[in-house]
Amino acid sequence: MNLIASTVYLAVVVSAADPLTTRLSSPDYTSAPPNLSTLANSSLYDTWRPKAHILPVYGAIGDPCMHYTDPATGLFHVGYGHEGASGATTSDLVTYTDINPNSAPFIREGGINDPVAVFDGSVIEKGINGTPTLLYTSVNYLPIQWTVKYTKGSETQSLAIATDGGRNFSKLEHGPVIPSPPFALNITGFRDPFVFQSPIFDNILHTSNGTWYVAISGGIHSEGPSVFLYSQYEQDPNFETWEYLGQWWHEDANSTWTEEGWAGRWGFNFEVANLFALDGEGYNPHGEIFTTIGAEWSYAPIVPQVSDERDMLWVAGTQKLSENGKLEFEPTMAGFLDCGRSAYAAAGKEVRESSLPSQTSGAPDRFITYVWLTGNFYGTLDFPTAQQNWSGSLLLPRELSVGYFDVVDNALSREKGSWRIEAEHGNGTLTLATLHQEIARETLGALKSNTTTHFIQPGGTFSSSRSLNRSPNSTHYILTTTLNFSPSARNNSALKAGLSIFSGSHESTTIYYQFSNESLVIDRSNSSAAANTTLGITTNPEVGKLRLFDVPNGSNGTAIETLEFTIVVDGGVVEVHVNGRFAISTWVWSWFEDSRDVGIFVEGGEVEFGDVIFWEGLVDAWPERSA
Amino acid sequence: MNLIASTVYLAVVVSAADPLTTRLSSPDYTSAPPNLSTLANSSLYDTWRPKAHILPVYGAIGDPCMHYTDPATGLFHVGYGHEGASGATTSDLVTYTDINPNSAPFIREGGINDPVAVFDGSVIEKGINGTPTLLYTSVNYLPIQWTVKYTKGSETQSLAIATDGGRNFSKLEHGPVIPSPPFALNITGFRDPFVFQSPIFDNILHTSNGTWYVAISGGIHSEGPSVFLYSQYEQDPNFETWEYLGQWWHEDANSTWTEEGWAGRWGFNFEVANLFALDGEGYNPHGEIFTTIGAEWSYAPIVPQVSDERDMLWVAGTQKLSENGKLEFEPTMAGFLDCGRSAYAAAGKEVRESSLPSQTSGAPDRFITYVWLTGNFYGTLDFPTAQQNWSGSLLLPRELSVGYFDVVDNALSREKGSWRIEAEHGNGTLTLATLHQEIARETLGALKSNTTTHFIQPGGTFSSSRSLNRSPNSTHYILTTTLNFSPSARNNSALKAGLSIFSGSHESTTIYYQFSNESLVIDRSNSSAAANTTLGITTNPEVGKLRLFDVPNGSNGTAIETLEFTIVVDGGVVEVHVNGRFAISTWVWSWFEDSRDVGIFVEGGEVEFGDVIFWEGLVDAWPERSA
Repeated sequence: MNLIASTVYLAVVVSAADPLTTRLSSPDYTSAPPNLSTLANSSLYDTWRPKAHILPVYGAIGDPCMHYTDPATGLFHVGYGHEGASGATTSDLVTYTDINPNSAPFIREGGINDPVAVFDGSVIEKGINGTPTLLYTSVNYLPIQWTVKYTKGSETQSLAIATDGGRNFSKLEHGPVIPSPPFALNITGFRDPFVFQSPIFDNILHTSNGTWYVAISGGIHSEGPSVFLYSQYEQDPNFETWEYLGQWWHEDANSTWTEEGWAGRWGFNFEVANLFALDGEGYNPHGEIFTTIGAEWSYAPIVPQVSDERDMLWVAGTQKLSENGKLEFEPTMAGFLDCGRSAYAAAGKEVRESSLPSQTSGAPDRFITYVWLTGNFYGTLDFPTAQQNWSGSLLLPRELSVGYFDVVDNALSREKGSWRIEAEHGNGTLTLATLHQEIARETLGALKSNTTTHFIQPGGTFSSSRSLNRSPNSTHYILTTTLNFSPSARNNSALKAGLSIFSGSHESTTIYYQFSNESLVIDRSNSSAAANTTLGITTNPEVGKLRLFDVPNGSNGTAIETLEFTIVVDGGVVEVHVNGRFAISTWVWSWFEDSRDVGIFVEGGEVEFGDVIFWEGLVDAWPERSA
Repeated sequence: MNLIASTVYLAVVVSAADPLTTRLSSPDYTSAPPNLSTLANSSLYDTWRPKAHILPVYGAIGDPCMHYTDPATGLFHVGYGHEGASGATTSDLVTYTDINPNSAPFIREGGINDPVAVFDGSVIEKGINGTPTLLYTSVNYLPIQWTVKYTKGSETQSLAIATDGGRNFSKLEHGPVIPSPPFALNITGFRDPFVFQSPIFDNILHTSNGTWYVAISGGIHSEGPSVFLYSQYEQDPNFETWEYLGQWWHEDANSTWTEEGWAGRWGFNFEVANLFALDGEGYNPHGEIFTTIGAEWSYAPIVPQVSDERDMLWVAGTQKLSENGKLEFEPTMAGFLDCGRSAYAAAGKEVRESSLPSQTSGAPDRFITYVWLTGNFYGTLDFPTAQQNWSGSLLLPRELSVGYFDVVDNALSREKGSWRIEAEHGNGTLTLATLHQEIARETLGALKSNTTTHFIQPGGTFSSSRSLNRSPNSTHYILTTTLNFSPSARNNSALKAGLSIFSGSHESTTIYYQFSNESLVIDRSNSSAAANTTLGITTNPEVGKLRLFDVPNGSNGTAIETLEFTIVVDGGVVEVHVNGRFAISTWVWSWFEDSRDVGIFVEGGEVEFGDVIFWEGLVDAWPERSA
């Protein structure tokens, strides 16, 4: 749970009853913007609003959380922080139905256990009496942050059960079921309980098959971040008693998987840990254990109440019983789930093949995660939120699996990074494993099929930037292309290649790869004329570390692997996906109406581009809202 | 904390602002009473109101609790349940000053930790920053009772600190410091934290000198009552972390010290445990460990939400470390602190010789306890409370010590009872030890010195009942007398001897001892004409088990020990103290104005009475209220 963002809502809402009626006439996008914070409330509602993404009708969105497949309907419920927690149902991972009118919450603060706030939680789908049962962080005191003294009792874990098909989660009339952090730990945080079952854990711990576990995120002052593990006590069907099993995972404060930057920093406090197992197809409880976590940290000197950075990471690893009988996690590889600095707090859930979306698409058991994209950098930006009347979005759902790919066995592939060696073939090649992530198949398929316009710009080999013959007319599209680099590119420190988007006579945003520091960059420095007039319109670059490996190419030849872009532009949301194992997402607050062009971007060398394929229009994820 | 009584307040208050102004003209006590519940509100305010006892200006009084000597002033603060908890200060244990006008509480429910209720607590006198610091039971859910399923999280233990000299206890802005009962115990209760220091505990447990401990009262469903022990963790000066040390004391459900009835029943759930050490003079932390506890139980079949009986017991015992390193208590003797069925929930505190009362009286370190006398049998009686506009009282303060007395070594003294053998002298005598309790010396002294009338009725040997030559004119007096029984009396099953009080043409109450079942009885069957017209005026007898031992008498002779009565009558409150080791207290709701006589009561034999000495008037404990 991001604590700053969770308090944004009050400043945002202009009209709860019917925000549509309060929207004013559109600003003039043909001339330079005024200070946007001087505009009428809600006048920017449409300017950067995504259509295929998940966000409430109005107001701020916080962390995704509390997803579940309702066993009674097969519908998948996607939850998110909003006046407590709100959510939507989907039968296809494409379109969504608000669980309540106006995105009203299904749970909110104000109970005996949670007088101050409701933070993230997760759902046991067949819980108490077979009903979806939510375990969530009930909050009693604020502020809470890893940079300040922890107020005892701030965060406890409480239960609520679905009623009315999930339109409300009714809090159980008893106290928290996890009423305190482990004894005498000077914690930095203790929240975001993630419930799961694991035959692997059952086996190692000699617990009954089907035991429920809870991973709780946090850390210990001056020691570092931790995931605290609990198990259902004596298979209590009411889930009232959870036994502490120790720190499943702990890292030293301010440490990192590798200082080379492949997996950010472990930081000082973990949030939103998800714990699940994957194989090459998707979710498999007998597979490889993964966790996705949010890691909070700051540059020195640490300023109270300020977390400079939040890294959204994934980690895979092995489990072992320690000498004192505690189950402990040892990472084997780690990376960013999304490199965007505003992308955080991912929350996922296993989505079984029996769910409605999977029944339709034929997908196997999957683990699907939603990443949050904060609209005001965790509440620290003075964005013209009242003018927009909403803040933040979830990113498109992603399905996760273990990805395997063959590479040349060399220093690049042997470095400690966001991959591990799965197999050594003895012929100069390795099979690497990493987290494979793709936009959910139904979502991606729908974005490509339910479009208003589809066109292809032929590729070619380019040594300079150029406009495409045709560009989208809107800010709602998906495009793919590929870049092939010659072997010499790896040592060409001047080379930058990719695409420009939101380009026009005044603005442009560039998405490019460079070998110099092996990074994928979104250069937003000229992305918004509004940045010149308005606070909170940030234009700092987004940078993600991405390695293009050497791969076998023909008989004994090698090549740099192809960079495969999938870029989603949806209002102000830009998602850049590369090679099924890299994502970087951000906001681009382009202002001018003519900033619609997409172009080839090349500097310092020559690159072979594949076709640039456009699907414009995207799906309206909320058909019932516009009805 | 008695849970039923704690909710009585709402039904009781007629006028908070100035109850005096709303009192109506006195009822007619010269003729038979009407149904008292038909009278005007507050019209019975004075009828049975005590003057030397502690009770609030109006409304109900609950458990005594939260006493302390303020280190800044030396004043002793006496607390009690009332709209939360209220209290008064005293410099002499005789007169009291309300800590707040109109007995307004110094703490009340409604905070984040205690939205529903504030139950009993105790005070670390030099606590956080040297300030009196209260540890109390913060309540989140009701109902709570040993007869029903325990609602998880109902009772936690929280801190508050004295401000404004104790006129307010400010709740600390963090969660409970003992946020839950011990792991996975299906408890019956978890409340009334009693803080103490003990060099004995320090020594056995190898903890730092001066460590604070907490005894929390409760029990475990189907297992029985318990006292849970905690210690201050690493001498945390903020008292935020308490380590669970195990069940210091546990008894099987529905068991007893002895079925002979010397110490009631352990029952099913403990409340209000105090834990302290005494020697022959008073409080001595190196002395013998005592606990006073309330034990809840019912006759079979147990009815949900009904606790038929509440025994107010004392217990002494030894400590030992169990094999698993837990400190465990083993009783060596146990008895009733007060045998009255309405007397319960005693709360005491060590009162040092440096306190203001002790400085004046020259008393050594003492442990002084106040017993509660419920006015409506724990909320179960339909007493005309609105007409009285108050309910219940505390009994007079008692100082506790270890009492020693020499007896003949025979079956009587060797029985397992409310005493233990301190020494065997080999000459046919034993020294027994027991809990010695006396009305606090200052209180008793003041009741005998600050009187309006003092007179003595000469004693004599009587074989029948008779009026005294002179009786008090009021219902506020203290009297003493002695009864000497001939050796044959022990086998005289018809013999009953004592005093009648509140006697007149229509009513009488008899206080007598009988050897037939070794009991002290208060026969209230004819005590109140109002019982014939009004619900809730109970007339059932009060019975307490009391052994008069054989004692050495001259050279080789033996005698039955003298029965020494001290009886306090204060409005409707009657306290009967015998031989410094027995007390039985109750209400007598005498109605008629002429029911003032005191008489000798003898049936079935002959008894030698000493002088009956009266001190009439008693002290007004609340001079500032009547001002």
